[in-house]
Amino acid sequence: MASSSSMRTPTLILLSLLALFLSSLNNVSSSLSSTPPLQFQHPLDPLTQQEIALIRTIVLTKHPTKNTTFHYVGLDDPDKPTLLKWASSSSKPHIPRQALVIAIVNSETHEVLISLETKQILSDNISSGPGSGFPTLTVDEQSKAIVLPLTYGPFIESVRRRGLNLSEVACSVFTVGWYGETNGSERKVKVECFMKEETVNIYVRPINGIIIVVHLEKMAIVEYHDRNIEPVPTAENTEYRAEHQKPPFGPKLYGLASFQPEGPGFKINGHTISWANWDLHIGCDARAGVIISMASIYDMEKEMRRSVLYRGYISELFVPYQDPSEEWYYKTFFDAGEFGFGHSMVSLEPLRDCPPHAQFFDAYFATSDGSPSLLQNAFCVFQQHGNIMWRHTESGIPNQTTREVRTEVSLVVRMVVTVANYDNIIDWEFKPSGSIKLTISLSGMLEIKAVDIKHIDEIKEDQHGSLVSENSIGIYHDHFYIYHLDLDIDGEENSFVKTNLKGVRVTDGSSKRKSYWTTETQTLKKESDAKIKLGLSPAELVAVNPNKTTSIGNHVGYRLLPASVAHPILSEDDYPQVRGAFTNYDVWVTPYNRTEKWAGGLYVDQSRGQDTLAVWTQQNRDIEKKDIVMWYVVGIHHVPCQEDFPIMPLLSTGFELRPTNFFERNPVLKTLSPKTLEMAACPKQN
Amino acid sequence: MASSSSMRTPTLILLSLLALFLSSLNNVSSSLSSTPPLQFQHPLDPLTQQEIALIRTIVLTKHPTKNTTFHYVGLDDPDKPTLLKWASSSSKPHIPRQALVIAIVNSETHEVLISLETKQILSDNISSGPGSGFPTLTVDEQSKAIVLPLTYGPFIESVRRRGLNLSEVACSVFTVGWYGETNGSERKVKVECFMKEETVNIYVRPINGIIIVVHLEKMAIVEYHDRNIEPVPTAENTEYRAEHQKPPFGPKLYGLASFQPEGPGFKINGHTISWANWDLHIGCDARAGVIISMASIYDMEKEMRRSVLYRGYISELFVPYQDPSEEWYYKTFFDAGEFGFGHSMVSLEPLRDCPPHAQFFDAYFATSDGSPSLLQNAFCVFQQHGNIMWRHTESGIPNQTTREVRTEVSLVVRMVVTVANYDNIIDWEFKPSGSIKLTISLSGMLEIKAVDIKHIDEIKEDQHGSLVSENSIGIYHDHFYIYHLDLDIDGEENSFVKTNLKGVRVTDGSSKRKSYWTTETQTLKKESDAKIKLGLSPAELVAVNPNKTTSIGNHVGYRLLPASVAHPILSEDDYPQVRGAFTNYDVWVTPYNRTEKWAGGLYVDQSRGQDTLAVWTQQNRDIEKKDIVMWYVVGIHHVPCQEDFPIMPLLSTGFELRPTNFFERNPVLKTLSPKTLEMAACPKQN
Repeated sequence: MASSSSMRTPTLILLSLLALFLSSLNNVSSSLSSTPPLQFQHPLDPLTQQEIALIRTIVLTKHPTKNTTFHYVGLDDPDKPTLLKWASSSSKPHIPRQALVIAIVNSETHEVLISLETKQILSDNISSGPGSGFPTLTVDEQSKAIVLPLTYGPFIESVRRRGLNLSEVACSVFTVGWYGETNGSERKVKVECFMKEETVNIYVRPINGIIIVVHLEKMAIVEYHDRNIEPVPTAENTEYRAEHQKPPFGPKLYGLASFQPEGPGFKINGHTISWANWDLHIGCDARAGVIISMASIYDMEKEMRRSVLYRGYISELFVPYQDPSEEWYYKTFFDAGEFGFGHSMVSLEPLRDCPPHAQFFDAYFATSDGSPSLLQNAFCVFQQHGNIMWRHTESGIPNQTTREVRTEVSLVVRMVVTVANYDNIIDWEFKPSGSIKLTISLSGMLEIKAVDIKHIDEIKEDQHGSLVSENSIGIYHDHFYIYHLDLDIDGEENSFVKTNLKGVRVTDGSSKRKSYWTTETQTLKKESDAKIKLGLSPAELVAVNPNKTTSIGNHVGYRLLPASVAHPILSEDDYPQVRGAFTNYDVWVTPYNRTEKWAGGLYVDQSRGQDTLAVWTQQNRDIEKKDIVMWYVVGIHHVPCQEDFPIMPLLSTGFELRPTNFFERNPVLKTLSPKTLEMAACPKQN
Repeated sequence: MASSSSMRTPTLILLSLLALFLSSLNNVSSSLSSTPPLQFQHPLDPLTQQEIALIRTIVLTKHPTKNTTFHYVGLDDPDKPTLLKWASSSSKPHIPRQALVIAIVNSETHEVLISLETKQILSDNISSGPGSGFPTLTVDEQSKAIVLPLTYGPFIESVRRRGLNLSEVACSVFTVGWYGETNGSERKVKVECFMKEETVNIYVRPINGIIIVVHLEKMAIVEYHDRNIEPVPTAENTEYRAEHQKPPFGPKLYGLASFQPEGPGFKINGHTISWANWDLHIGCDARAGVIISMASIYDMEKEMRRSVLYRGYISELFVPYQDPSEEWYYKTFFDAGEFGFGHSMVSLEPLRDCPPHAQFFDAYFATSDGSPSLLQNAFCVFQQHGNIMWRHTESGIPNQTTREVRTEVSLVVRMVVTVANYDNIIDWEFKPSGSIKLTISLSGMLEIKAVDIKHIDEIKEDQHGSLVSENSIGIYHDHFYIYHLDLDIDGEENSFVKTNLKGVRVTDGSSKRKSYWTTETQTLKKESDAKIKLGLSPAELVAVNPNKTTSIGNHVGYRLLPASVAHPILSEDDYPQVRGAFTNYDVWVTPYNRTEKWAGGLYVDQSRGQDTLAVWTQQNRDIEKKDIVMWYVVGIHHVPCQEDFPIMPLLSTGFELRPTNFFERNPVLKTLSPKTLEMAACPKQN
């Protein structure tokens, strides 16, 4: 919910009373401070605090409180035809709200569908048997698991043997993956421990050599090995909190004071944003984090609003580490499915995580016992200023120099997802030109393997990483983000077009040129046609509406301008790669299927790859003239270096979805630059 | 020269008198308004107005004014050892200034080296004979050539036949390239004409079907063909000047008012910038445009300044069009060598081309007759605000949530190079973290082929482009920029290291993993080893200092994070590709050689590819433990679309040079965020 700072108290009281009244009509208890008045209820709005509390009550009426843990609680989004009909109708009829709960009850995984209208359970199915994977871990069970070693005899001994202070030990949970086990799995995790002595930067002070397996249902340590002792890397030079750092600080950076003379530029109505020519809805989900929905752009020439993106979010994040040793081989994480992007969102710091004049939104997620928990400043929305929109200087006309430069403002939606050591800053940027720019920025810290090595000369064998500090190996790893991009280009029925750039050799002497390139366009018909590895041969990939053309006949579309490419290097049959098979190609296209949300499968923890995007697409379904979804993988290979230690300066990558014959011509040709005021200072007061 | 706005008059007078005195010592006339007081003379400072005037005098004392045209006048940069010695000495001895002039005298190309100290010609060589290419075109000869058709009988008739108004015709010059001619070439260009009636956007209103060849020395039309008549595309919807556009305008963009509460953050001393931990020199050259020199970063931990980039600039821009027909086949431009990046720089518009609080610099270039011409606001320097520098939220320690977010400011140097229709916005961004981010943004307009086609259904054969508007084909083309990056990583003696990421199959059952990847590092020994096509296999490319390591033994270095890759598609033996052979690989490494500046050769107009980077590297010289230079190609394939018409919203690409074990650890760990003031408005006056 938007944090608005400009409320005046009497109005606040009045509107809160109104909110109370309205919410009482739904028989849901309201919270005076957190319900913005006159909030527009969009069918895709995230579950409210009240709804989460209601869901808890409903589920725990059926299932025993003691043996029930809530692993996913989220809006069960209305089906697409219903939603589109709602969007296009002026009366905006109420769509009954539903929620999906994935709960573990008496060690069984339940998928519970609930009607928030009737407050009934619509269905309650136990998920399929062994080998099908497990739900997202809860924050609560991780909190419990990480303190188990501290009272576990052998671990206390291991700590003592290493001369370490037990009260300064902090542990973390790591998912175990699947390595070919054929029997049914049980919910287990591995726990690794670190020293928090003299620094808050625990990840760079690992206590290596110890393997701890925790059985989550039993909440007990079921395996323990202490394989060898390595020195714990020093705390020196690892602190990153300014108040704990010692001078000198520098270099000095000179900042900016700013204000918005004409106001913020965007209108927020609950979770719906209107800005410039864009309308969009920002949802928030325990698994996906921020979800952009129903993004449409107003076409000034056609005088109509046109759909662009029905739904966009990061569907999974695969982070495989590259050390095959006993302590590291299993570290092949799927951060969205195993930990939950939403659950891993962190509170954004004003003026730092988001620039000045950002608007912040809170979010509610369900905790392990089903009760709602507030995350303040879960995501922000802000304007980006100062970029050139287009420009030209014409010097070619004698006696006449012409210059026209237009500056733009763009809208950015930002969240930060921190899974243990890594911070992922995820931006969705909307430009008035119709472009959507997606940016991923990495910060946080490396996963460190402690070694008895202080200099690379002491390295005798492959350490599977870089020596980034004394006694510290930053293990090689990859980051693969897969975006779910349900583009609805001017409507749902789309096709996917691949335009190959082909070299042509001139053999008939018809030109002084020996060669040139031209294009060969193919509309991809089946899923197998649309499994694309970028970078092998030059091509343009465009999602088009085959039923709509511009006045001169080009199909309206949006094309993908990809990021720098990085492909998986693991063998396709290797266990983590089977689970992460959605990275075998950079681009996939599927026919829209409401159940196909999670590229790694619904149950990712210890999954066996049975429910991935790679599996779905084996059906080889039609994708021509259909409601289609594009899946796009952004990969980063990470060979750590010393600058990544003890915390990493931002490393960014990104891609663009760019209108391609979507408009009749440049849509911002008649867009004027914003008023930009360059001041020496604020005028002095008399 | 920097435009400084904060001078107080008495000081100005005093300092100008001082400047007069100082310049009188050099016997150069000064200009009161354009010499900033106490200007620090850096040996790489661009030629001043006075120096250019002096050069003209010297050359025209020897060569007859009537038959001498100045095609290049620039600083002949001091040799590297001299410059480095100068930089490291505290006394800063005066290095004699020299200039290089490329002039055509009586139709012969002269390379004239001049001492600005002694005012003598040091050498005057006639460049080698037929086939060696010609110098950069002058603005003046292009201005003369473009009016020739207007008084040429056959052209007047062609215009009349087309029912066009001769007084509304504007023409433009296009270089002809080389297509296998074996005899000596003569300096010719082709001229194409456009209608400027009802719009200033001439490039989208071409008069096609006419081929005009102009002999530049004779300044006369020597060939003329009128092959066929095509309709000139309409002026409607092509205007981009706001004052000539009709409402409605939109969407409305809401801007920002800002001021710098602590001042600008950078110190400018002539052409030397000190900002945060960076020092650098910004030069300006008629051929290269902006040149970044002697960029070094202050290492707070080592308490010393360390070199990073000795010289960086764009060495050539190859723009081959892909229509093999008679009117288009030859359009394969080399914008830096044929037209000159410096000559093509355009005056930047404050608050639009550059954000608020930018500092602007003027530049002087020599015109065709050798006299200096002022370009105001030739490039700008500004601070970029608001990005996150690094961040982390630590939720893993029980009962303790930690969050640290640091924001950064970066320094940007920007120029805009407009060659006819295309505007290239070139940014060099310097971050406190040591990263250098290079960005290329394209705007301006497409080259259009007029056709008698209003709808794609009417297209019967390959048009070699996209129908972007009625009667308008946007011809397929590429943009290839090659950067000269003379990285001096902590000193001149460097090596180039290629770290291959190699998949390893686990065959001995030693791990539950079947595979992992590790690194295999090779130091490239010879030029042939360092011809690299990116994207074929995963690798990291790092320029290192083989003599310097961090305390734990890693060689200090900077790595290349490449842009999205685009490779040439033309046959390697095709004439334009031979001339542009420097694009056959994305990355090249050469031993530093002061004469190897221009990747397409010194004389590019009608060159035959005899003097390109591809030719130099055939020498296969040693590049290990040497002063080496990295050449890096950024490519863009352009399949035009309607949004590119009539002017293109910015399309950006970029890459990063990132410290890799250059520092002992994150160099901005102890950098504090700038003061950022978020204001609702300026405080009201009483």
